[in-house]
Amino acid sequence: VGPVSDMIFNDTWVSINGDITKAQEAKISIFDRGFLFADSVYEVTRTYEQIPFLLEEHLQRLHLSAKRLNLPILIDDQEITKEIYNLLKFIQAPQITLRIIVTRGLGELSLDPSTAIGKNNLIIIAKGKNENPPELYEKGVSLIISSEQRGHDDLAPGIKAGNYLHSMKALQVAKEQGVYDALLLGENGEIAEGTTFNIWMVKNKTIYTPPLSIGILEGITRKELFKMTKRLQLPLEEKVFHRKDILEADEVFLTSSGRELVPVINIDQLIIGNGRPGKMTLKLLDLYRQRIKYYIEEQKKGRP
Amino acid sequence: VGPVSDMIFNDTWVSINGDITKAQEAKISIFDRGFLFADSVYEVTRTYEQIPFLLEEHLQRLHLSAKRLNLPILIDDQEITKEIYNLLKFIQAPQITLRIIVTRGLGELSLDPSTAIGKNNLIIIAKGKNENPPELYEKGVSLIISSEQRGHDDLAPGIKAGNYLHSMKALQVAKEQGVYDALLLGENGEIAEGTTFNIWMVKNKTIYTPPLSIGILEGITRKELFKMTKRLQLPLEEKVFHRKDILEADEVFLTSSGRELVPVINIDQLIIGNGRPGKMTLKLLDLYRQRIKYYIEEQKKGRP
Repeated sequence: VGPVSDMIFNDTWVSINGDITKAQEAKISIFDRGFLFADSVYEVTRTYEQIPFLLEEHLQRLHLSAKRLNLPILIDDQEITKEIYNLLKFIQAPQITLRIIVTRGLGELSLDPSTAIGKNNLIIIAKGKNENPPELYEKGVSLIISSEQRGHDDLAPGIKAGNYLHSMKALQVAKEQGVYDALLLGENGEIAEGTTFNIWMVKNKTIYTPPLSIGILEGITRKELFKMTKRLQLPLEEKVFHRKDILEADEVFLTSSGRELVPVINIDQLIIGNGRPGKMTLKLLDLYRQRIKYYIEEQKKGRP
Repeated sequence: VGPVSDMIFNDTWVSINGDITKAQEAKISIFDRGFLFADSVYEVTRTYEQIPFLLEEHLQRLHLSAKRLNLPILIDDQEITKEIYNLLKFIQAPQITLRIIVTRGLGELSLDPSTAIGKNNLIIIAKGKNENPPELYEKGVSLIISSEQRGHDDLAPGIKAGNYLHSMKALQVAKEQGVYDALLLGENGEIAEGTTFNIWMVKNKTIYTPPLSIGILEGITRKELFKMTKRLQLPLEEKVFHRKDILEADEVFLTSSGRELVPVINIDQLIIGNGRPGKMTLKLLDLYRQRIKYYIEEQKKGRP
């Protein structure tokens, strides 16, 4: 393990079934079905002031993913939450990315899940880093529309299981083209979602995002934006739209738990709107950050 | 690790980058991209008299899968072959199942494969067991046709990457119904393949199997059967067929590297043919076993 991988492990701690180790020493049996068959579910969130944002919503989605895979989670949420907080104590960083993974556990060399021994492995990874760079929000980012199609079946979309290979391939192409990230199309060529984020556009002051029915992940940030815009009576519609529509939008932005709300100023080398973060985008970002602040304050009050 | 998992590990040895350990001690970093993102490729084959059958064909397909994922394999075939033979020395069993896994290696907590450190992990699992039970071939097995659809995109089918969740779900349902295994349908409802095997039917003395174009894995045993039937001028056609066709077939059988050629006598609780292994099926099984014998003898001669 040389200097390159030391960088990977910088400020990273791991909890495996409650045992906390340095990232360098965090190992799992190769007979874990997560490794052998991607037979695992996961969530990613980030902290603000050492508090994981909307953790309860993420755990709820974790259970949804597990249900879809018939993967029993025998560890309760209280236990998971406790292990997360135990782990967070080891890092002091303005932003900690949390990856929570639950696998079906060890099993035989057989795809058959009934050969699993019936004991989950719970892996929590906490990686500290600096705040997201302000330029991300001030300048915005460029995307491509990938030719990789979002898996349009009843399994892969909508859940976070260990099989993100389509998204990986799309992201790989984006990086090779020197672009921030990529969008994936749905079954009928509609704009579906990004590799690890939801996508939005603004047109004539109305906000649009694709409906869940086309087979996309229900982002936690997406859900928050729905609640927020409803409360503030901002016009938001779920709508199927295509490449042409998004290229002609006034504003485009993406949402993800880790990156909050990021303006998109260029898609497939075509400028969106005036090439700068849009008014509505920045307004929503501001509102979303107020929401975060409120949540964190409430959580702090609730602490024993 | 209790008695149940001891059973899993019985007669099993693992080589990780050439280091051989007992199965119980075979661990990998949780930052391996195979664990985090199913970013790995694999092959499964079995031995006869300690010789891995058609290993060169399996390694060829391993490279094909890797290419499809843009996953560079920086270990050469000679090295992989050497590690396999090193590992095999630790087990004396009539049949050894080999699983050869190559992952992209360690990486950051990012889907982006360019964050990988550029060093594969090579994991070889060797599990010894008794010969497949003779009843499998004498009595045949029952299948169901799963409502899980084979992933019909340009990535999942045709390659062996770490994302077999569809097949897993189908197999899970089959086991719950007390049935041996399951078939998956293609995009247009055609019979595609089994969870971990290719499917064949015999009708009026002609052998049929679905074409690769519908998005199925090109089985090594499938390839062998094509060569064999051509040499012997047995009528074989690649053809798209559906549920009705297979239920009305005279004979049905499946092929896989581990199980060779297994008669199917019942699908969705309906009897196929006369409910016993068919003549053509048994003839092909016999021919295939002759082929195996010939291959093993040739390999033995070639040994230093």
